[in-house]
Amino acid sequence: MFREYDVIVVGAGHAGCEAAHAAATMGSRVLLITMNMQTIAQMSCNPAMGGVAKGQIVREVDALGGMSGIISDKTMIQFRMLNRSKGPAMWSPRCQSDRVRFAEEWRLALEQNLNVDFWQEMVSGLLVEEGKAVGVVTQLGIEIRAKAVVLTNGTFLNGLIHIGEKQFGGGRTAERAATGITEQLVRLGFEAGRMKTGTPPRVDARSLDFSKMEEQKGDEQPGKFSYLDTPVLAEQRSCWITYTNEEVHSILRTGFDKSPMFAGRIKGLGPRYCPSVEDKINRFADKDRHQIFVEPEGWNTVEVYVNGFSTSLPEDVQYEALRRIPGFENVRMFRPGYAIEYDFFPPTQLKSTLETKLVDNLFFAGQINGTTGYEEAACQGLMAGINAHNNAHEKAPFVLHRSEAYIGVLVDDLINKGTEEPYRMFTSRAEYRTLLRQDNADLRLTEKAYALGLASQERYDRVVRKKEQTAELVGLLKKHKVAPEEVNPSLENQQSAQLREKTTLYHLLKRPELDMPKLRELSPSVAEALASFTDEIQEQAEINVKYEDYMERERLQVEKLERLENLSINPGFDYEKLTALSKESRQKLSRIRPETLGQASRISGVSPSDISILMVHLGR
Amino acid sequence: MFREYDVIVVGAGHAGCEAAHAAATMGSRVLLITMNMQTIAQMSCNPAMGGVAKGQIVREVDALGGMSGIISDKTMIQFRMLNRSKGPAMWSPRCQSDRVRFAEEWRLALEQNLNVDFWQEMVSGLLVEEGKAVGVVTQLGIEIRAKAVVLTNGTFLNGLIHIGEKQFGGGRTAERAATGITEQLVRLGFEAGRMKTGTPPRVDARSLDFSKMEEQKGDEQPGKFSYLDTPVLAEQRSCWITYTNEEVHSILRTGFDKSPMFAGRIKGLGPRYCPSVEDKINRFADKDRHQIFVEPEGWNTVEVYVNGFSTSLPEDVQYEALRRIPGFENVRMFRPGYAIEYDFFPPTQLKSTLETKLVDNLFFAGQINGTTGYEEAACQGLMAGINAHNNAHEKAPFVLHRSEAYIGVLVDDLINKGTEEPYRMFTSRAEYRTLLRQDNADLRLTEKAYALGLASQERYDRVVRKKEQTAELVGLLKKHKVAPEEVNPSLENQQSAQLREKTTLYHLLKRPELDMPKLRELSPSVAEALASFTDEIQEQAEINVKYEDYMERERLQVEKLERLENLSINPGFDYEKLTALSKESRQKLSRIRPETLGQASRISGVSPSDISILMVHLGR
Ligand SMILES: Cc1cc2nc3c(=O)[nH]c(=O)nc-3n(C[C@H](O)[C@H](O)[C@H](O)COP(=O)(O)OP(=O)(O)OC[C@H]3O[C@@H](n4cnc5c(N)ncnc54)[C@H](O)[C@@H]3O)c2cc1C
Ligand SMILES: Cc1cc2nc3c(=O)[nH]c(=O)nc-3n(C[C@H](O)[C@H](O)[C@H](O)COP(=O)(O)OP(=O)(O)OC[C@H]3O[C@@H](n4cnc5c(N)ncnc54)[C@H](O)[C@@H]3O)c2cc1C
Repeated sequence: MFREYDVIVVGAGHAGCEAAHAAATMGSRVLLITMNMQTIAQMSCNPAMGGVAKGQIVREVDALGGMSGIISDKTMIQFRMLNRSKGPAMWSPRCQSDRVRFAEEWRLALEQNLNVDFWQEMVSGLLVEEGKAVGVVTQLGIEIRAKAVVLTNGTFLNGLIHIGEKQFGGGRTAERAATGITEQLVRLGFEAGRMKTGTPPRVDARSLDFSKMEEQKGDEQPGKFSYLDTPVLAEQRSCWITYTNEEVHSILRTGFDKSPMFAGRIKGLGPRYCPSVEDKINRFADKDRHQIFVEPEGWNTVEVYVNGFSTSLPEDVQYEALRRIPGFENVRMFRPGYAIEYDFFPPTQLKSTLETKLVDNLFFAGQINGTTGYEEAACQGLMAGINAHNNAHEKAPFVLHRSEAYIGVLVDDLINKGTEEPYRMFTSRAEYRTLLRQDNADLRLTEKAYALGLASQERYDRVVRKKEQTAELVGLLKKHKVAPEEVNPSLENQQSAQLREKTTLYHLLKRPELDMPKLRELSPSVAEALASFTDEIQEQAEINVKYEDYMERERLQVEKLERLENLSINPGFDYEKLTALSKESRQKLSRIRPETLGQASRISGVSPSDISILMVHLGR
Repeated sequence: MFREYDVIVVGAGHAGCEAAHAAATMGSRVLLITMNMQTIAQMSCNPAMGGVAKGQIVREVDALGGMSGIISDKTMIQFRMLNRSKGPAMWSPRCQSDRVRFAEEWRLALEQNLNVDFWQEMVSGLLVEEGKAVGVVTQLGIEIRAKAVVLTNGTFLNGLIHIGEKQFGGGRTAERAATGITEQLVRLGFEAGRMKTGTPPRVDARSLDFSKMEEQKGDEQPGKFSYLDTPVLAEQRSCWITYTNEEVHSILRTGFDKSPMFAGRIKGLGPRYCPSVEDKINRFADKDRHQIFVEPEGWNTVEVYVNGFSTSLPEDVQYEALRRIPGFENVRMFRPGYAIEYDFFPPTQLKSTLETKLVDNLFFAGQINGTTGYEEAACQGLMAGINAHNNAHEKAPFVLHRSEAYIGVLVDDLINKGTEEPYRMFTSRAEYRTLLRQDNADLRLTEKAYALGLASQERYDRVVRKKEQTAELVGLLKKHKVAPEEVNPSLENQQSAQLREKTTLYHLLKRPELDMPKLRELSPSVAEALASFTDEIQEQAEINVKYEDYMERERLQVEKLERLENLSINPGFDYEKLTALSKESRQKLSRIRPETLGQASRISGVSPSDISILMVHLGR
């Protein structure tokens, strides 16, 4: 019934869709198997893409030729650039999405890819021969062979849904759980764990009083995710902000004895940074209110996502508490919030390509690796898809470094440190965040992806142009001098110090109070000189000029650390003799046997001082 | 958590959506509870609405103020008026739908109705107090009260899916089955049965060779379902026709020993008129080919519905057989066909309002009553919704007669004859099909629905206008005489006999070879006289003129039968004495004790000759 495929992708969530798209675009024949073709790229939780650090990831996925940015652009209903008031390293694009459109566009995009075939069914096991994955077995007993298999099962493996004291099997509300895979992998020697996550109730916008909430509009000049020519929003929908209060909290507390988490029925580890509302009032007992974002689920639907109110308390407690939130007095729910427990595989069992160490040609991506979030899933899918293709075609692995991309940080963290709780990206996880900005993901990554055959010629040409024009503009800024009499009146207006002598635009731009738009107002001749450069180029040049010192510093650090990173350790090195190392360090190093000092430094339990000791012994 | 509702509707299939919409539009506060809010108005099987007899039903639903016609119009990708070459009683509108859009539009329409609330969950039982339904209980144990409950569970009650020798629980592919309700109803004294239906595989359009198939385009001037001002299709998508052959059949036969139907694993009764392909080659062994319609599932998707190839044979047999169909040589499947068995309740347990006889305020509509088809489900939902509202507000029942609507035929058949297999509408089931046409459903029904508060003022005004203008035009046709010299040249052109004397247009129109467009060509003055009438009015007048004798005959019959129908039978009548009746008749009549001769005539097993005998004894 089926040909032999190059790559089989199991699951069509954010990870699976990117994996299938990437491998297929690079030329692999791909079969995407998923339990329900109507829920391809379903957003399980909030109807939004991007956000702090996550927005950067979406930009990186886009720069690499992935689809998440394009799909987001086509289906967003609101766009905001978060942290605009901070430095550009912190700028983070985020959008609200139309949930139905998002899923539909992803599916249509995959259908357009001639190398992607589809099969709707549950995969119940893997075909493994001589330590290699060679295909999958489905619930109907169909065996389908492939050169590589990517598992992206999300929250579905033995998924168990909790609401108050009730539990039922399911991979997501109203969807079945998937069984069989965990059990087989454990038999094969994998370690499996259990995690949990939660989602808030959905409510009826027609029952809310928005006049009691603060409106949160989209940006006046909405941006977008893709570096390609995707459409810019002409119209936007607003979100709304309201707050819990003491009464809400005390009603929630009445449900604590029935809480599956507090009562210990949920064994899995939850996301500390995405806590349920009961967690929040429990952990931050002194806070008398928490913010609630009221997010529409699409252009036309009245369904509303109550961001900040994730909960697995009994549904009547959820309801009574909701009703005490300003604007929610007459709330009608569509469905209660719930928590879900699911199997994951500690990601230290993976290589940096996301291939498993135990079984060749088998890749894991997404929530199955202990992460949380669409963006985290999507970027792993992309990397796994690339490497599955490369594996199937005997090409070199493709790995991103921590200094190249948030994606590099994420994969490196996962495979070296593992994770005790659902792993989510933060800017603080990146050492080089001044380098890893949302505005330059294309400059960092598109050439590599072009070389892989993933990014299109168009993407490549655009990056080359962007580079050239930015350099041209920076050159111009350095050359173009303005005279005091030409610009002093404007500078005064802008409360910027007067010039005494001719000065380059470059120097003026370094002044904190000035930026590109203000430079253009300095004089008609300056305006004219800059007029031929697009907004994107002007922004790029501005960032380069203003932050060049920071960036230079980070670049030097990267170089230094790269040298260290690549410092190789003799595989036979006897750690036991180095008694100055902590006992834990010695054990771990002896067991894991890192190949480089960089890798050693990222083993959890190996401290910076241990690394110093090692360095001394390695002769530095 | 929930207020007391007027009406709770369980299930948001075609029946449930119409029920909720109707009751809410009439003023009831309605709660629509469904297992998955993302599958509201999901088309389980083929992406099409209408067809022979079914199209008439959709027009009737529309005329009554239901939504199925409007939703179909907004989401169709192709329209055809079937049987155009036959008399207008046979004209049947049919469209291909965009499956995703259809479901989305229905959901948005319900969201627009301020009286409809939503709750996503499985209903696991009813609240019954003193023989009356007073609400439902959900899987979470939530009790929700209402004055009336409408059950529209479709194929979900204890649904069991079969593919070859494999079986798994489910209400539809990739959806869970519903449990609890059947068991409770049986405890309450209901009789439950088991039926089955099937669906073909879905395949990938990109793998088909359409050049080997016949194209089937939509009508050049596409019509629509709604009498309101819905948009007319500007663009259409084609379907394609191909055929099975002996090779296909012999491959299918290799799977017969594993067929769940032939092996007897499926106990439920299947739809004789919608047979699986294995049924067809089994029952019609002499036919060497069967037609296959290749239907796109939407505007953009590559998913294709293989109409005519419904099957529950093993998936590899499905595949091998499909591949031998011209154009399918390289077919790739998305998912296999399957059969599903589910519980239904023999509809003889219902009153003509679709309320159950056993439990007051409890209504059944749709597939749960043993019917099959979206249209059959939708119209029952509408009727149940109306009557649930009327019940909740102590208003009179609303029943349609067999002479008023296909809907009347359907309900009357169901509650009196019951059904041994999934009941589907045919024109042959209607005695008065010249009266029950697709062009006049508004004339038949909209005034009634307006009186109910269901049809809008706009609908009502349109019907009044249509009536007046049709009468005006018929009057004009009867009055307007044309002279031989004025029209004879044109008549000669049209190969119609020459006139000898002045003749009315009315008489000319009765000629079989002439129709309205041709009348208009008779002479400039005729064209001018008719110019102010719309196409719809001209068509209406033409049908009235051409078919008035047939219609009159049927109308007289209706009157006669209505008198008979209403002939009451003494409840104490001793049938056993009437030995001229067949034994079966005597038993059934004694048991059922029909109130009128009409009702007696529709008891299955009571023959026309039995009715004659009865009539004699009743004094006619
Ligand atoms: C209740 C809930 C709450 C969440 N809350 C948050 C949150 O607060 N913050 C946050 O950032 N993220 C949250 N998430 C997580 C977010 O949804 C996931 O991180 C993201 O969707 C993971 O993407 P994925 O591709 O790994 O898996 P998923 O999106 O889960 O997709 C998995 C896909 O695989 C398919 N599949 C699974 N097993 C099989 C099989 N055996 N055979 C065939 N197909 C299979 C499924 O049908 C599905 O299509 C939540 C998820 C859930 C369910
Ligand atoms: C496999 C298959 C093949 C078919 N083949 C044909 C065919 O060849 N020809 C044809 O004319 N028709 C066919 N049909 C039938 C057609 O789909 C149905 O007649 C029509 O959809 C029935 O409409 P309904 O509203 O009664 O139920 P459905 O459309 O089945 O909708 C039932 C709804 O109720 C919900 N529900 C069920 N139980 C509960 C509960 N306990 N609590 C909450 N919600 C619940 C479900 O989630 C669903 O939304 C087929 C159906 C299936 C599944």
